[in-house]
Amino acid sequence: MAEAKKLSGAGLRGQVAGETALCTVGLTGTGLTYCGYDISDLADNAQFEEVAYLLLQGKLPNQQELDAYKAKLKSLRTLPDALKTVLENIPKDAHPMDVMRTGCSMLGNLETEQNFSEQDDKIDRLLAVFPSIINYWYSFAHKGVRIDTNSSSDSIGGHFLELLHGKKPSELHERVMNVSLILYAEHEFNASTFAARVCASTLSDIHSCVTGAIGTLRGPLHGGANEAAMELIQKFKTPEEAEDGLMGMLQRKEKIMGFGHAVYSDSDPRNVIIKKWAEKLSKEVNDTVLYPVSVRCEEVMWREKKLFCNADFFHASTYHFMGIPTGLFTPIFVMSRVSGWTAHVKEQRANNRIIRPSAEYTGPEHAEWLPIEKR
Amino acid sequence: MAEAKKLSGAGLRGQVAGETALCTVGLTGTGLTYCGYDISDLADNAQFEEVAYLLLQGKLPNQQELDAYKAKLKSLRTLPDALKTVLENIPKDAHPMDVMRTGCSMLGNLETEQNFSEQDDKIDRLLAVFPSIINYWYSFAHKGVRIDTNSSSDSIGGHFLELLHGKKPSELHERVMNVSLILYAEHEFNASTFAARVCASTLSDIHSCVTGAIGTLRGPLHGGANEAAMELIQKFKTPEEAEDGLMGMLQRKEKIMGFGHAVYSDSDPRNVIIKKWAEKLSKEVNDTVLYPVSVRCEEVMWREKKLFCNADFFHASTYHFMGIPTGLFTPIFVMSRVSGWTAHVKEQRANNRIIRPSAEYTGPEHAEWLPIEKR
Repeated sequence: MAEAKKLSGAGLRGQVAGETALCTVGLTGTGLTYCGYDISDLADNAQFEEVAYLLLQGKLPNQQELDAYKAKLKSLRTLPDALKTVLENIPKDAHPMDVMRTGCSMLGNLETEQNFSEQDDKIDRLLAVFPSIINYWYSFAHKGVRIDTNSSSDSIGGHFLELLHGKKPSELHERVMNVSLILYAEHEFNASTFAARVCASTLSDIHSCVTGAIGTLRGPLHGGANEAAMELIQKFKTPEEAEDGLMGMLQRKEKIMGFGHAVYSDSDPRNVIIKKWAEKLSKEVNDTVLYPVSVRCEEVMWREKKLFCNADFFHASTYHFMGIPTGLFTPIFVMSRVSGWTAHVKEQRANNRIIRPSAEYTGPEHAEWLPIEKR
Repeated sequence: MAEAKKLSGAGLRGQVAGETALCTVGLTGTGLTYCGYDISDLADNAQFEEVAYLLLQGKLPNQQELDAYKAKLKSLRTLPDALKTVLENIPKDAHPMDVMRTGCSMLGNLETEQNFSEQDDKIDRLLAVFPSIINYWYSFAHKGVRIDTNSSSDSIGGHFLELLHGKKPSELHERVMNVSLILYAEHEFNASTFAARVCASTLSDIHSCVTGAIGTLRGPLHGGANEAAMELIQKFKTPEEAEDGLMGMLQRKEKIMGFGHAVYSDSDPRNVIIKKWAEKLSKEVNDTVLYPVSVRCEEVMWREKKLFCNADFFHASTYHFMGIPTGLFTPIFVMSRVSGWTAHVKEQRANNRIIRPSAEYTGPEHAEWLPIEKR
């Protein structure tokens, strides 16, 4: 074997592991583009389904294409009985991301991708069905109620809220969910997307790729940050308490989630967008605590550590204002990011080589076998 | 963002993506070592449980430790009722690797790893339970019989065969399973192991890491090769037919599985070992077709293409001689490799940085937003 080339950074940081036409992070403008479109343009103007179509088909849909796409997604929300049985067997205290992972894996048994010509249909099914999976389990586990997983909402965000609350969401809430799903849709070679591409590189099926990505997103260093941010801001009753509390945490060198980023150095372009919607929602619900507390946290972290809010921080209060339980924050991330994951799987499949790096060996040089009686 | 360093090879080939003390591939001796021990020493002398202990604890056990370890594993073979229900809801025509993936994921809901101090117990449970998972599903789906997943065999290989055939295996068969599990246990940064490490790097739980690894191993470029080899050799009734058939396939440039390797260049050290056992078994069952056909395939591929048999090729006839259905070949790979996967997860956790590479962007530079009515 030729000697392997040693890389400088741990965790492959800053090392190119492949090509993508889907996304830039930190390169141009506000720093995040999907297929060349700036994230702020998309968040201001697009629907999430439009963005998913862009990522998966490489172009923005016209009105007819978008209408057809949304109608297709709406028609794919029903859960097979066997999947319902599985969800009913998952206990109430399970981790909601384990529910998402298992729901996706089970679906792969029932609706297996037999070959790659089926990939677009399987992807659309996943996009459509995740809100049904998590809400069916949540309702059954917590209330013992088997919900109908169809709803009148024609958007994925609206569908999620309608299943969760049992009523059609307000226009504002549907819009905010839409923006949130757009912001989380895609982010280049983040760990969960990279895991999906490693899986895809063995030419495995789409459910395996997405199941692996969900498990990877589950980690507290990746998808769990908005839940951790919620736990943080809920500790404080006033901005002053938040200031004191954070200063203490900084002094004790405790980990504070929702700030800084592995790739962005100055700011996360998604923060300014979601913060605006958090403020709007806080006014709607007459909040006088969570939003001001969040703003103070942002000020303190910047003043003391030059750390900026990432996409996750103001998502915490945003979701909370819409009545979403904290445990469902990361599953919403899945509902969105599945668009990016699967777009990357398609891209990997279209120009594939198995992803099989080398390792630097740090173990013993040679060990002589020792019979067990001599150990 | 600093400019990302471009790598030379697609699929990170030959690029160091991290450190490991667990394994060398192609560096010394016959080319494969686990914790410094040569694969041929391990295959000749060790039990699989001894090798799993070595990988997971970093040293060979003494007799007392090995006895205690095997007794612990034997005590962990029972399936929770909720997992049985899930397996009973997976159809007969499902892909057996999807069953393994879903079984592992479901177990994560029922026996969640709450923190890393539990990792060794969760890992041992997975080692013990995979033969139960696949055989419970296989028996129920194919025969409608709910089997007892405990058995008298005190080895993982013997346990698998006893559940599959409903009787204690011969000493020879138990020994061969043992060797096979040792050969497949660990192989450095192969794609499924690397997927497990990417998942572990977000500090996700052990079930997520293994679930993702199973999905990655499922791909035909990775774990499916021994099944493809079986399909190949079953086509031929004589060595002469095999010679003609292979020559035709080579002429038509068809893909032939079970030969060559991404890392080894001259030979796969596992082949000489498993080939010997395949020959022994072929004599036991008075085979006059599969083994001679396999040997001829090896000769033709070397003569024509200088391609050598990898670990998978003679595994096909080996498993077949022991009455194992072809669809269960890759699940056996899981039963073995879970030792290596989880050893790598432990290693990643002990010195972690999130694995988050960069990508080379190949998409459009900047796209102006176009309102939908103008598209």
